[in-house]
Amino acid sequence: MYKYQHGGNVYFESCNGADFLDLSASFNPLGFPPGVEDAVRNEIRFCNRYPDYRSVLLRESIADYEKVPADWIFCGNGSSDLIFRLPLCLKPRKALIWTPTFSDYERSLKSFGTEIQYHKLEENQNFECDESIVTTVEKEPTDLIFLCNPNNPTGILTKREIIEKLLRYCRTTKTFVVVDECFIDFTEQADEVTVKPLLSEFDNLIILKAFTKIFALPGIRLGYSICNNKTLIDQLYYHGPDWAVSNLAQAAGMAALKNTETYLKQTVLFVKQERQYVQRELENLRYKIFDSQANYLFIKSPFGFDLKKELDKYRIRIRSFDRDSGLESGFYRLALSQHQHNTRLIETVQKITSEKNGGSTM
Amino acid sequence: MYKYQHGGNVYFESCNGADFLDLSASFNPLGFPPGVEDAVRNEIRFCNRYPDYRSVLLRESIADYEKVPADWIFCGNGSSDLIFRLPLCLKPRKALIWTPTFSDYERSLKSFGTEIQYHKLEENQNFECDESIVTTVEKEPTDLIFLCNPNNPTGILTKREIIEKLLRYCRTTKTFVVVDECFIDFTEQADEVTVKPLLSEFDNLIILKAFTKIFALPGIRLGYSICNNKTLIDQLYYHGPDWAVSNLAQAAGMAALKNTETYLKQTVLFVKQERQYVQRELENLRYKIFDSQANYLFIKSPFGFDLKKELDKYRIRIRSFDRDSGLESGFYRLALSQHQHNTRLIETVQKITSEKNGGSTM
Repeated sequence: MYKYQHGGNVYFESCNGADFLDLSASFNPLGFPPGVEDAVRNEIRFCNRYPDYRSVLLRESIADYEKVPADWIFCGNGSSDLIFRLPLCLKPRKALIWTPTFSDYERSLKSFGTEIQYHKLEENQNFECDESIVTTVEKEPTDLIFLCNPNNPTGILTKREIIEKLLRYCRTTKTFVVVDECFIDFTEQADEVTVKPLLSEFDNLIILKAFTKIFALPGIRLGYSICNNKTLIDQLYYHGPDWAVSNLAQAAGMAALKNTETYLKQTVLFVKQERQYVQRELENLRYKIFDSQANYLFIKSPFGFDLKKELDKYRIRIRSFDRDSGLESGFYRLALSQHQHNTRLIETVQKITSEKNGGSTM
Repeated sequence: MYKYQHGGNVYFESCNGADFLDLSASFNPLGFPPGVEDAVRNEIRFCNRYPDYRSVLLRESIADYEKVPADWIFCGNGSSDLIFRLPLCLKPRKALIWTPTFSDYERSLKSFGTEIQYHKLEENQNFECDESIVTTVEKEPTDLIFLCNPNNPTGILTKREIIEKLLRYCRTTKTFVVVDECFIDFTEQADEVTVKPLLSEFDNLIILKAFTKIFALPGIRLGYSICNNKTLIDQLYYHGPDWAVSNLAQAAGMAALKNTETYLKQTVLFVKQERQYVQRELENLRYKIFDSQANYLFIKSPFGFDLKKELDKYRIRIRSFDRDSGLESGFYRLALSQHQHNTRLIETVQKITSEKNGGSTM
């Protein structure tokens, strides 16, 4: 039975109106890069042609940006297109995901009929992934592993050394490791943490990235994988629709990647600053904040009331989690947005928390 | 091993330049409807949000256009998105396709690992599908059947009565029947031939349609299925990426469906007129023309030379077929385009045919 398990679903009545603030899905608070709008406008007239099914020009732009060869890149209709193609390519009988994490890995595996093994990230270890994941995999090898770095919804980073150990072991069992780095470019530590430097050594490594988050283009649908495995890339083309990436998405992607350096630097600085601000204010209210390095905060409420429901009354939407996510109640994910929005969030949480606690939160 | 098996791949060097004429893929020669360009322009600013994963407004527009309930419709990233989702939903062990037909049915079934049974349409029966398909299915039932009406690449229509018989038998074996009607709106007989009137009776019937062909919007990626089976529609959401349809595609689709009556009437008339013109001229040159009712002609050359290669020299690209298509050499599919393009095609074929036959074609 299908159930929508994401934030960002603003297409229902209560979300209408200019004062509605959606913090249930997190995109670059600076908005999409200048140039995207013109590029899309100019491309519309060419929509009477099929898109280039190989996204040749777009892959060249991505190659420049990622500093990898263009033929290591495969473009899809959002990274979720990749997440659904991979099981069709690899036909995994068994796969490993950690929990909590992005729900699409589980759905795509279940959709294909793969048996799923879960590696629980523990709250008392701040949801960090340590070397115990290698032990888990050694005990019971699988065909495919999905990791998310920084993890969604926690924002916690996993060290490259741990993923490298995993890759080394997985090579012996012919296990593919997918590392979803869709949020990594928001982190100051991106260069130290990304597993891109491991691509040339490991042909069982697949990195996922997207324009959705870092370039604030969720509506355009554009994601890509990077891997150094020609057979797998050929299979990605085979096991899904041709023309998955529209003309407009290809044009938008190329425009987004033009002169991004300043935009990305500003993004990382801005997100860090806002994260620190929101974190400090929420800690003052006694919320527990996990060490997110992404453009969202993962928090736990020490109070009995439902923060999401209360914020809804003020037309602010955050993300909460049900049992399917492997989290107990009281956890929330809050997107970092523009400063005035973050201020509105904080002021509203202050008001709610104070009221619910009889006028005092301290 | 992946192989591109379609027309319309104009993204390689020899296709560049204003004088290149691509007749290897066929779209509405009138171009996409007025209003699409503005609608897309206006939507760009909202690409910082996820698309509505249920395409609610778009489905309402399609429901008006198709005269079916909106909750019978599922929208995807082109009809090929649907073609790849369906095996994941239905998990067919065995499926039937006829041949020749659109190559994506075979690829999606192979991708999932389904065993394929082929029902050969015979040249000496003008590639028409008669009741023998019901006999084929009775002899060896399958879980899923893909039909294409009018068929691609032949343009031949199949009578509704035959598909109804098939549906009736298939209901007893719990077999789903997919009828791809992506080209049906080009035909004068659309109302008599479409299986839409059978939807309310048969919950094992799935119709596929797209904006690609009739609205000349291949670059936007937008297709949909219609069926009266709530369980299957729920599965279509489950077994593929959310947000498959971009904001821009949703906006373009809604705009394309506004005030379409005149545009569609003109389309049917224009295509008929051009089909008759091209058919007559090619018959004069002794090419065999099959009875296409779509916006392309399917022909067989009585001559030994490769018409596609010869037309390539004049910067005109048509579609030929390799062995994988189940056709011997000498068959071609020619898109009907604007009149001056069709004239250029005819004049060039006349020149080539005359030269190759020593100055005379008659």
